[in-house]
Amino acid sequence: MNWQKILDDIKEQIQPELGVGKVADYIPALSKVDPQAFGMAVNTMAGECFKTGDADLPFSIQSISKVFTLTIALGFENEGLFDRVGREPSGSAFNSIVQLEHEQGIPRNPFINAGAIVVTDTIITHCGEKSTANLILEFARNLSGSSRVHIDDDVARSEALWGNRNRSLAYFMKSFGVLKNDPEDVLQAYFCQCSLEMTCEELARSGSYLANDGVDPVSGKQVATHPHVNRINALMMTCGHYDMSGDFAFHVGLPGKSGVGGGILAIVPGICTVAVWSPALNRAGNSHAGTLALKLFSEKTNLNLF
Amino acid sequence: MNWQKILDDIKEQIQPELGVGKVADYIPALSKVDPQAFGMAVNTMAGECFKTGDADLPFSIQSISKVFTLTIALGFENEGLFDRVGREPSGSAFNSIVQLEHEQGIPRNPFINAGAIVVTDTIITHCGEKSTANLILEFARNLSGSSRVHIDDDVARSEALWGNRNRSLAYFMKSFGVLKNDPEDVLQAYFCQCSLEMTCEELARSGSYLANDGVDPVSGKQVATHPHVNRINALMMTCGHYDMSGDFAFHVGLPGKSGVGGGILAIVPGICTVAVWSPALNRAGNSHAGTLALKLFSEKTNLNLF
Amino acid sequence: MNWQKILDDIKEQIQPELGVGKVADYIPALSKVDPQAFGMAVNTMAGECFKTGDADLPFSIQSISKVFTLTIALGFENEGLFDRVGREPSGSAFNSIVQLEHEQGIPRNPFINAGAIVVTDTIITHCGEKSTANLILEFARNLSGSSRVHIDDDVARSEALWGNRNRSLAYFMKSFGVLKNDPEDVLQAYFCQCSLEMTCEELARSGSYLANDGVDPVSGKQVATHPHVNRINALMMTCGHYDMSGDFAFHVGLPGKSGVGGGILAIVPGICTVAVWSPALNRAGNSHAGTLALKLFSEKTNLNLF
Amino acid sequence: MNWQKILDDIKEQIQPELGVGKVADYIPALSKVDPQAFGMAVNTMAGECFKTGDADLPFSIQSISKVFTLTIALGFENEGLFDRVGREPSGSAFNSIVQLEHEQGIPRNPFINAGAIVVTDTIITHCGEKSTANLILEFARNLSGSSRVHIDDDVARSEALWGNRNRSLAYFMKSFGVLKNDPEDVLQAYFCQCSLEMTCEELARSGSYLANDGVDPVSGKQVATHPHVNRINALMMTCGHYDMSGDFAFHVGLPGKSGVGGGILAIVPGICTVAVWSPALNRAGNSHAGTLALKLFSEKTNLNLF
Repeated sequence: MNWQKILDDIKEQIQPELGVGKVADYIPALSKVDPQAFGMAVNTMAGECFKTGDADLPFSIQSISKVFTLTIALGFENEGLFDRVGREPSGSAFNSIVQLEHEQGIPRNPFINAGAIVVTDTIITHCGEKSTANLILEFARNLSGSSRVHIDDDVARSEALWGNRNRSLAYFMKSFGVLKNDPEDVLQAYFCQCSLEMTCEELARSGSYLANDGVDPVSGKQVATHPHVNRINALMMTCGHYDMSGDFAFHVGLPGKSGVGGGILAIVPGICTVAVWSPALNRAGNSHAGTLALKLFSEKTNLNLF
Repeated sequence: MNWQKILDDIKEQIQPELGVGKVADYIPALSKVDPQAFGMAVNTMAGECFKTGDADLPFSIQSISKVFTLTIALGFENEGLFDRVGREPSGSAFNSIVQLEHEQGIPRNPFINAGAIVVTDTIITHCGEKSTANLILEFARNLSGSSRVHIDDDVARSEALWGNRNRSLAYFMKSFGVLKNDPEDVLQAYFCQCSLEMTCEELARSGSYLANDGVDPVSGKQVATHPHVNRINALMMTCGHYDMSGDFAFHVGLPGKSGVGGGILAIVPGICTVAVWSPALNRAGNSHAGTLALKLFSEKTNLNLF
Repeated sequence: MNWQKILDDIKEQIQPELGVGKVADYIPALSKVDPQAFGMAVNTMAGECFKTGDADLPFSIQSISKVFTLTIALGFENEGLFDRVGREPSGSAFNSIVQLEHEQGIPRNPFINAGAIVVTDTIITHCGEKSTANLILEFARNLSGSSRVHIDDDVARSEALWGNRNRSLAYFMKSFGVLKNDPEDVLQAYFCQCSLEMTCEELARSGSYLANDGVDPVSGKQVATHPHVNRINALMMTCGHYDMSGDFAFHVGLPGKSGVGGGILAIVPGICTVAVWSPALNRAGNSHAGTLALKLFSEKTNLNLF
Repeated sequence: MNWQKILDDIKEQIQPELGVGKVADYIPALSKVDPQAFGMAVNTMAGECFKTGDADLPFSIQSISKVFTLTIALGFENEGLFDRVGREPSGSAFNSIVQLEHEQGIPRNPFINAGAIVVTDTIITHCGEKSTANLILEFARNLSGSSRVHIDDDVARSEALWGNRNRSLAYFMKSFGVLKNDPEDVLQAYFCQCSLEMTCEELARSGSYLANDGVDPVSGKQVATHPHVNRINALMMTCGHYDMSGDFAFHVGLPGKSGVGGGILAIVPGICTVAVWSPALNRAGNSHAGTLALKLFSEKTNLNLF
């Protein structure tokens, strides 16, 4: 596979789509990014990295961090984690509270906001509220092999300032006893994880264990068990793109997780990981150009699981 | 792979689970089946068939027929079909009407009842209400290579008699102009397709084109285009098990479609198809033992896409 | 009270509001009416009638007929009627099906479409499907003292032709066993009752028993028991204007029932009844000018119950 | 009217119903009350007070305080208040958040929790967060003519401690900009108003302005305008008993407001006010025996508005 040519072709073809959609503006810190930016990186199981465009520019990974916290929490709790969070697509927006009322405060899956807050709550239970943000940061640094990866304090403060919808979700779950820790502590850690900054190259590298049965192909370290990786990828396939997860599976056919910063991480089990970034979002909050770039990738490589 | 041994081991291990759950009883014709029945068949791309248990007993395939009608309708309309039916998991029960009211009568996906009714409506538009049931029957016979496959008239009449919930869905969509034909004609064809009877062996054989990029491996005939097969499998992965689709992806990791008759068809792209049947259902309306058998299959063969 | 002057003043003041809103157009037969039409009539307990504007033009009373069928059904079943229909405001549109799914097919109250269909179903159980429409017609003729009152066949046929949303509601309730008779029979009678034509004068006269503890002040006949009248008026107050019932109580303070033909019947217990008609509707499906006219009436007469 | 005999008869008849239902136990401070307690008081426009049972025992008025805060807020903002809170029955539980998501954070009416929180937010905007609780207390003391009326600090602290569901509602509305002040300040005042303690006699006395066109019959002071009183009573009629408001109107036919402390205040315009208290609640959170006592009152006096 001529990965470099594939990436370069995608970059060229995607030009007319750059800037289509709307950059996330719910916090000022995110709204300042260039809507035309586009980067893409492929990390193969052989350890090679190919990249194009702005693949070395750091961006806010936002909800993509939910993949990492799910990995950490599964390590702590195994499937007991799913007593407090489901594993079904929600059929609703990422920040919806309706389903929580209908289902006694148990979120539908770990990738909607409410579910991710429960996952972070679990980590706090095991590590304490003081260490959790740092633990997540170190996890991301180790996976990416890059000490440059950091939490953008400006974004984290902004998230906290404008985080009343998430605060509402957290207190709602607390009222049902689904959260075990102080909601403000959980949200603090949650806002930090959302504010992780990585480049496409670092992100593709970080997700490699998900394409390799749980083993980091560089360090050889077992990051997650093989069954856990099966389950994380399954959740990325069915729930990774909010209320357009079905559409992503339909067009791309790969497990993927998007973030409102415009990034998407996609997994091709046994072969490679792909990270793409372009900040303008479609109506469901996923990168418009990033989604299309992965559709092109899937078509050009025939790496569609189906 | 020693397919026969794998199937026999599964059959042995699954014994304690047989009869757990509840046989569909919404129509008398379905309620009479033996809850302890269990059959399983694997059909490889090399054209071999392996089977165990009651794999030669015909059963009512019910919603599994939605895979075949979707294939037919995509052939007629291509992606234009998706103007009238979505491709997202619904987050609701298979017969829910709530989502239809919130989304102007457009069903979430082709595998919930409302969506499948739209798909059948499309076939009627192309073939007429008189020929549609027969067209679907012939399609199933050709795929299965078995002229024994038939529509059980007793079940079809029973479905019509007890079909007021589906009737309500159809008239609701008609009121929004989403159905193009007379709802009673559409329902008549829909009840017929649900009443198709097949054995596990026939069903596994019928689904082979979905594991083979759209080509029937026996006849060499192109049943569906490669992109259509990608999309059908994606929909089976995200929406194939009603409101437990996420759970099936989580535990089995294969595209699959269940029916309330207790059957499940699962696809391993490039390798094989698997059909399983056991009539007692879990709370979401999927075969209890059948789901577990496929979980065992996925674990024993490591044929989990993720 | 100088009723005539009050009515004439209202007619003058209401002129700028005539035609504001939208005439019901879901069936052609209703859409042809003059949006500027306005009539109003007061019928006192002393048996006097005062009127203004188009108070002698017959119009389609539509949902106002639900008051009469509720009176008939309560006569047959007493409070046992409320086993199959609730008495709470729905918080939803008049034709919503969402609540039915959440509450096992039991409609929230007798004045939303689903609830009124249950009420008509009850009458059929007692009188047979052949006699029900005629029984309702005779009931209305007796109350109004006018043999001119009739069912407009053109409207009834139009309702049946465009009645798929109501058909969906009926089959939905049938699937839960809430309807006892054939849904098509029930709908046929329901569409007939909706197509009753009356003038403002006839309508005001017809409702007199509701202002007089159940006794028709002209004939002296007990049309309904005193407790039933209390309950019917209570339901008109809390549920009589679909999802703007609270607003009507807030601004007018009288029990009232509206119809999409643009009519409203309001009750002042012990004193009088008021009928108003103006065809252009507000967003909730109630007469825009009619609602404002009743607000003026309430202010000018101080006949606000609160 | 022999008020005293009526009250005594009610007290006797209600005995078998005392203790039926469940005392509010969401906070420890409320759960300790005697479920058999029963008090009732009538305050006539002539200034006479009649009482029976535990009418001199103070209890937590809880949501009945929403009537007083609505009166205060209408005084500040007039109908502009209704830009941020509706006036329709909600069709949902008192603490439901579903409707808020569907309607952009605007609560359905001022008597569900979310709506009452908006009303309190309005008072804070006019008086400051430091003075609001005290202002409400003084308002209640003036109306009741009793300096004994007080805020139970134990209950208020308990409400704050167990108030995560209300906290969730407040942050949800804040995220839509519907709340103007700091949610924690608003909740603090809200929890204080809910913790007001009054006796039946004091409560009946306090509500007198609502039966007297806004004028306190003792002091002669205009507490609210006549139109405001019409509107407050209308809201009590349509929304005063959470999701059993229709039922209360149906059986009692009077404007009323209940609280989870087991109290109900009912208004007979022009004639009297009635306060009843019995702590065991029905499934909707209204006093079981209190509701029945008011039904008996309505039947014995024929003081049903309908």
